[in-house]
Amino acid sequence: MVTNDRVGPLYLRRAVAALEGKETATLVLPDGERHKTMATLSRIFDALIDSRFDRGVTLAALGGGVIGDLTGFAAACYQRGVDFIQIPTTLLAQVDSSVGGKTGVNHPRGKNMIGAFHQPRCVLADTATLETLPDRELRAGLAEVIKYGLMADAAFFGWLEAHMAALLARESEALAVAIERCCQLKAQIVAADERESGVRALLNLGHTFGHAIEAAQDYSGLLHGEAVAAGMAMAARCSADLGWLSEADRDRALALLAAAGLPTGRPPELDAVQLRDFMASDKKVSEGRIRLVLLDGIGSARLTADYPASALRVTLEYDAG
Amino acid sequence: MVTNDRVGPLYLRRAVAALEGKETATLVLPDGERHKTMATLSRIFDALIDSRFDRGVTLAALGGGVIGDLTGFAAACYQRGVDFIQIPTTLLAQVDSSVGGKTGVNHPRGKNMIGAFHQPRCVLADTATLETLPDRELRAGLAEVIKYGLMADAAFFGWLEAHMAALLARESEALAVAIERCCQLKAQIVAADERESGVRALLNLGHTFGHAIEAAQDYSGLLHGEAVAAGMAMAARCSADLGWLSEADRDRALALLAAAGLPTGRPPELDAVQLRDFMASDKKVSEGRIRLVLLDGIGSARLTADYPASALRVTLEYDAG
Repeated sequence: MVTNDRVGPLYLRRAVAALEGKETATLVLPDGERHKTMATLSRIFDALIDSRFDRGVTLAALGGGVIGDLTGFAAACYQRGVDFIQIPTTLLAQVDSSVGGKTGVNHPRGKNMIGAFHQPRCVLADTATLETLPDRELRAGLAEVIKYGLMADAAFFGWLEAHMAALLARESEALAVAIERCCQLKAQIVAADERESGVRALLNLGHTFGHAIEAAQDYSGLLHGEAVAAGMAMAARCSADLGWLSEADRDRALALLAAAGLPTGRPPELDAVQLRDFMASDKKVSEGRIRLVLLDGIGSARLTADYPASALRVTLEYDAG
Repeated sequence: MVTNDRVGPLYLRRAVAALEGKETATLVLPDGERHKTMATLSRIFDALIDSRFDRGVTLAALGGGVIGDLTGFAAACYQRGVDFIQIPTTLLAQVDSSVGGKTGVNHPRGKNMIGAFHQPRCVLADTATLETLPDRELRAGLAEVIKYGLMADAAFFGWLEAHMAALLARESEALAVAIERCCQLKAQIVAADERESGVRALLNLGHTFGHAIEAAQDYSGLLHGEAVAAGMAMAARCSADLGWLSEADRDRALALLAAAGLPTGRPPELDAVQLRDFMASDKKVSEGRIRLVLLDGIGSARLTADYPASALRVTLEYDAG
């Protein structure tokens, strides 16, 4: 069971106790996206070999998306592939990263550049763990929740507009509805396109911008969800500038992000040219053109590289203030 | 195109020239099994990101098994999986490692402990490259050739007994027959069992012993093929001690290895207890029991952990002298 030094003290003992009778070993890694590296991955391999676990081992990821991505990638590679399960303890991991089998680590010059598709045997999302989640991380998780509404489900987007206050107040009924809907949407999309050759790419709404922001901040600035929120705001603004999204819908998108206490534009200290450079080394580049997920409306997204270069430049230079 | 500093000077320029019109980049890695590490793997990722290759890249492995395993694993993980082709330049890689999709790196405490199954888009085996192969490596490749006869094809084993001198003299017709037969056998076995849940494991004849020898020598002693030869001799001796293999067939196995100039037992300086320890951390351990590929006859192998522990001890302690 792999966890981090923030989640471990809260839940590791109980989680291990639930495995009574099994041979178990635990590994507590430092918390944070900046530790999602090849070096940390090697620590998991070292621990597995120290304990002499064979191909029958099952890894369990107890924590947020970083722990899930690292542990899943270790499971994909240890002895060329062993089983793993996800036990996500953050809203972001429960609605997004724990479902769908994307695993991996960051490269100093790009997020998730190294990884594997490796499906967990199961995902155990215990909403009670959200009680200990810091407010800022709850909001970062809500960014991904908003994403599902924006890119695929206008009705859910409307529900979110009506229930954002309840979600921020951690009302358990509202959280359960939101998590269930997000997992349904993600599972449908991944089942249709595991390897992201088509519709799955739409889940990256806000992510190409967001990843560039995270990389430019060396993964120690905005949280992933916050960066995605900034990226979705940039995508909405770009879509409206292109005339694809109405100004009213752009403003609904920006307003819901703001209501969740999330960024609605790039961090002002980042340079537009530098961001463009990081975007150009993202995985979503095809034959040198930066492909973006842009919006045709609330609940309707498309992946395209067919837009004027000037539109991206204007978007990157826009200072949300 | 990834190669090493021994093969690169011989063939890299010609290989790159064959890709005229394509955007290419080359990476020359240090030669040798001891470089088959996570650190060297990272150099491939760095080079890919430096060149900003996107998911449309195809990696090419120009070299022996180490280059093939490293490059294939990098292809499995770069942006969660890109295409690769194998251009094996050693006999060992042509008859074994380039076919079947096993990729990976070593851990300081175990060979190939970290890796992936990732099939190459094609394997280009140019037998002309064997003209520059050092004698010792030719013989190491013949160890794997002998393995196919021993574990799966008695008629081929007989052919090898009759043609070993021709193979050692690098007669191209004999080499072509041997390479073709090995690739046929391997492709059949891998097609039936890619993930090594059954028959593919028989290809590991000699490998559990051999990997332990390589690890005990910190991957800087015997060549892989030589270690496998030593391991096959140990497996043959163990099988005969158990009464599964006739003494006559054991002696045929040992004689053919000797005729190829290969080791017929463990390096005398290695300690039996230390070898046992390395074997216990090999991937072929199931629930604490060391599974071995042993022989019922020439051309007939079985994977089993159902043998007396004393038989393995005797085998490990036997000093071929």
